[in-house]
Amino acid sequence: MDVRELAVSAEYRVAVEAGDDWRGAIEAVAADEGVAAAWFTGVGTVRDADVWYYDPDAEEHRAVRFDEPLTVAACTGGVSTGEDGEPSARPYAVLTRPTGQAVGGYLNAAEAVTGRLYLRAFETAFDDGWTEP
Amino acid sequence: MDVRELAVSAEYRVAVEAGDDWRGAIEAVAADEGVAAAWFTGVGTVRDADVWYYDPDAEEHRAVRFDEPLTVAACTGGVSTGEDGEPSARPYAVLTRPTGQAVGGYLNAAEAVTGRLYLRAFETAFDDGWTEP
Amino acid sequence: MDVRELAVSAEYRVAVEAGDDWRGAIEAVAADEGVAAAWFTGVGTVRDADVWYYDPDAEEHRAVRFDEPLTVAACTGGVSTGEDGEPSARPYAVLTRPTGQAVGGYLNAAEAVTGRLYLRAFETAFDDGWTEP
Repeated sequence: MDVRELAVSAEYRVAVEAGDDWRGAIEAVAADEGVAAAWFTGVGTVRDADVWYYDPDAEEHRAVRFDEPLTVAACTGGVSTGEDGEPSARPYAVLTRPTGQAVGGYLNAAEAVTGRLYLRAFETAFDDGWTEP
Repeated sequence: MDVRELAVSAEYRVAVEAGDDWRGAIEAVAADEGVAAAWFTGVGTVRDADVWYYDPDAEEHRAVRFDEPLTVAACTGGVSTGEDGEPSARPYAVLTRPTGQAVGGYLNAAEAVTGRLYLRAFETAFDDGWTEP
Repeated sequence: MDVRELAVSAEYRVAVEAGDDWRGAIEAVAADEGVAAAWFTGVGTVRDADVWYYDPDAEEHRAVRFDEPLTVAACTGGVSTGEDGEPSARPYAVLTRPTGQAVGGYLNAAEAVTGRLYLRAFETAFDDGWTEP
């Protein structure tokens, strides 16, 4: 088990704008602020969502598409630095429908309507090979 | 995209009491502790829940009522200062039934049975117009 | 309502290993690092899950077993010190299926495939009797 003590560099509140890609917005903040490693939680509304499920037996991801407005009732994940040296965000989300029904998984892409995130940036690099969700 | 670096003022653990309104309890803590801006996560049990879904096309909220005990499997949100100068909390939650089925959205009201929250208060005001969930 | 201001002692990122029990891994980190009180959020994948729902009327827990791989779309909870003096973790989780369907509750046990957690440890003891989820 990899356990590492973290040194915080800064903490941010992010208001995601309408039309932004949810994951792309997190990566843009990290790039703009020079953040190589971070942890975040968030909430909001998206217009659609491309959600991934990881099947550990097949060792592959399965995508599910939700083409409908959804509440982001929970979003949790991390930012690390990808092989290209750019920040890579891995947001997981629980999304809810008008009936309250909840769906979710790894949130690969979603068009934001509105969103608020708390992002905590660290000096400590996350170099433990978390390149897949 | 509004990105602001935050300066923490204090952090708290809150044990919500049976009978408290979930959102009201968060606002009461913020008022008692003089907190104008905060971010929180939490878990617990509620006896019923008034959940809102925001429809971005109709630009209106739809309420769904759950008159049953529910586990608060995730609660995430922020506190800012309302137009009346009082703390306003915006909790989003994922709630689960005895079968494990999950529902959720913006948690407008819920009678707490038990709850634990981690609340992080900031000196930085959240004055970016987040007056709607 | 019990509200206590917290003094942080350290913060950690934990990579849960394949085969670890999800809750046991959190307790092992707390024991190894000498953590008596903490709050955490996390994401990942588990191979199965033993989820509890607390029924406040019957005052008892009901277990639901999910014998299938599930995405941990959200995990939130605390660590306190049990009656035996050892760290006791109370993780709540929202878990998702290949279709995106979400289930969840108190995550009593689950075999991890992969997982990432942010854990914030406090000097302040959580001695408010949170011995039940």
